[in-house]
Amino acid sequence: MPENEPILLTPGPLTTEPATRAAMLRDWGSWDAAFNRLTQSVCADLLAIAHGEDEFVCIPMQGSGTFSVEAALGTLVPRDGCVLVPVNGAYCTRIVRILERLGIAHVTLPLADDEPVTAAAIEAAFKEHAHITHVAQVHLETSAGLLNPLEAIAEVCARHDKRLIVDAMSSFGALPIDLRKGGIDALVSASGKCLEGVPGMGFVIARRALLETCEGRSPSLALDLHDQWVYMKKTSQWRFTPPTHVVAALREALDRFLKEGGRPARGARYAHNCATLVEGMAALGFVPFLPADVQAPVIVTFHAPNDPHWDFAAFYAAVREAGFILYPGKLTRLETFRVGCIGAIDEHDMRRAVAAIDTATKQLGIRVRAPELA
Amino acid sequence: MPENEPILLTPGPLTTEPATRAAMLRDWGSWDAAFNRLTQSVCADLLAIAHGEDEFVCIPMQGSGTFSVEAALGTLVPRDGCVLVPVNGAYCTRIVRILERLGIAHVTLPLADDEPVTAAAIEAAFKEHAHITHVAQVHLETSAGLLNPLEAIAEVCARHDKRLIVDAMSSFGALPIDLRKGGIDALVSASGKCLEGVPGMGFVIARRALLETCEGRSPSLALDLHDQWVYMKKTSQWRFTPPTHVVAALREALDRFLKEGGRPARGARYAHNCATLVEGMAALGFVPFLPADVQAPVIVTFHAPNDPHWDFAAFYAAVREAGFILYPGKLTRLETFRVGCIGAIDEHDMRRAVAAIDTATKQLGIRVRAPELA
Repeated sequence: MPENEPILLTPGPLTTEPATRAAMLRDWGSWDAAFNRLTQSVCADLLAIAHGEDEFVCIPMQGSGTFSVEAALGTLVPRDGCVLVPVNGAYCTRIVRILERLGIAHVTLPLADDEPVTAAAIEAAFKEHAHITHVAQVHLETSAGLLNPLEAIAEVCARHDKRLIVDAMSSFGALPIDLRKGGIDALVSASGKCLEGVPGMGFVIARRALLETCEGRSPSLALDLHDQWVYMKKTSQWRFTPPTHVVAALREALDRFLKEGGRPARGARYAHNCATLVEGMAALGFVPFLPADVQAPVIVTFHAPNDPHWDFAAFYAAVREAGFILYPGKLTRLETFRVGCIGAIDEHDMRRAVAAIDTATKQLGIRVRAPELA
Repeated sequence: MPENEPILLTPGPLTTEPATRAAMLRDWGSWDAAFNRLTQSVCADLLAIAHGEDEFVCIPMQGSGTFSVEAALGTLVPRDGCVLVPVNGAYCTRIVRILERLGIAHVTLPLADDEPVTAAAIEAAFKEHAHITHVAQVHLETSAGLLNPLEAIAEVCARHDKRLIVDAMSSFGALPIDLRKGGIDALVSASGKCLEGVPGMGFVIARRALLETCEGRSPSLALDLHDQWVYMKKTSQWRFTPPTHVVAALREALDRFLKEGGRPARGARYAHNCATLVEGMAALGFVPFLPADVQAPVIVTFHAPNDPHWDFAAFYAAVREAGFILYPGKLTRLETFRVGCIGAIDEHDMRRAVAAIDTATKQLGIRVRAPELA
């Protein structure tokens, strides 16, 4: 795929299939029935991936995934609600910043970057703060690549009758999420992550009975999920100009997703990519930041080599020159870098990426020793 | 261009150049310097189109144009401000709905759908409502295709020291706007209108000195223009995942815009398209809703034929079958339909569209008589 080099080893935007990008070669009228059918089929497939056909609806939203997270919080949480936010990374912190702007009360549950939240900690927070009404949970914290235990969280929320809003940005489509099991009230994700579409739209899968109670609540017109849903139900159109080419690319990406074997196959390929990466990097001396049991197969944080020649910018440039785009670390207390395992890439790409990293470290005279091993 | 039929005679999304769509065949890393340069060059060109290089900055924003309108209003207007909104169409009404959601006081100046606002009416409103601090003005009301007199409006705002925020969604890039003349504090437009990019992002061109005073004011994190600007200045990146392919398409579209001869050439082509359309439709008996002197060369509203066989859905389908997508009317009190003159189309396309409309009316047995002439 030389026309699309470098390959993106980043957690979205990511490397997509040529056919997905080629779906953007046609212009669509946003009022036209053919485009409306495209939107409807995309939403139906997204609902089905999470097994939400019975009690949920899927509402697409223009903008990045964060726009959909803010739309979900601003529309679904009453002004007098109180949201519990377990915080083990930058995307959890972003939810807190959104709640601050919306003027919604919240309680944070601070955790380390490598520490998944537990159902017990959430239950303890419910007991300490009886006024908590909602939980906003990041499923996969992309900051470190950390997996939070969604099923246990959903179970404790259901038991205590709290509404659960899940930021499934970088897990949806790859990791199992089954809305039929209960406990989850809304899921948020976006086009350009594990579904392997291009970035430019997000979506919220919300419990219909909950969304129906939210008319006129959003302090934003653009991000009003209820208004978007009602208008789309009535007209089959988006309220405001949709990113037509992005929607068409997502349709193609979903066709390829289904052809690959859906969520289980997508998750298996990513797991294989991740194992290939971690194994190859280990052979070079690179150590992952997270323990294997909490490492999601989406993005891996590696310790920077404990070597005076280490310079991320130079390393990034050398690996980029070899055809791969890495991602900087997002931890404040440690020097790290990240390598994504998602997108239209396979184990061969991962091996080539490891080889490129090997060559780059040698070129730059970096001796790879992780801090713990130094 | 058979691969891209039907041709969109709609005010955005519109028919783009094949090269613009082909620019989306590559994936870009949102953190990568190559993509950051792309964003910076796009913003620099947008600023230059409005002659805003000296005192203004350009902030791109994810989502449709409405997202950028809300971002501008929510960031630039203080909570105790009061906004005058002249209303002669649905996009003006949308601004009122946004202000209602934001909880910002406003005064509306109601006008007919075919009645441009006058500087005198705005001045009278300033005198009657001394607490007005801002004016939110739609330049070209796409509902009917009506042009409001921006220079006179800017002049009266400057004279009374009111801040002027202009929704230039469907005029930017085609109609003259010169920020050096003063009076305008912010301009809002989007990628997929007269710049002939694809939809998926908007932008705000804001007076730097004004924007600098707006830290922390936006009630939304996603739509915080100040935060977006500061982050981009610091990192040269978008705060949240950018619609990378849409940005790349806009870069290509701007290259073609500059090659065509910039704003004057683009405006001249559209004016020629519009004249060709109106003349051809007149020969068939179709009468425009607006008088010629307030008709902008972007979208033309035509009276529906006063004939019992008229059925917009059937007419739309027949014209679509012939390769052209029309747009429904947006006036409540009259039966109309709209035909756009913008996009990568020329007078030959307009003549073919008129021929398709002629054939469709004959096929459907519609006798074309405008209401006034009936």
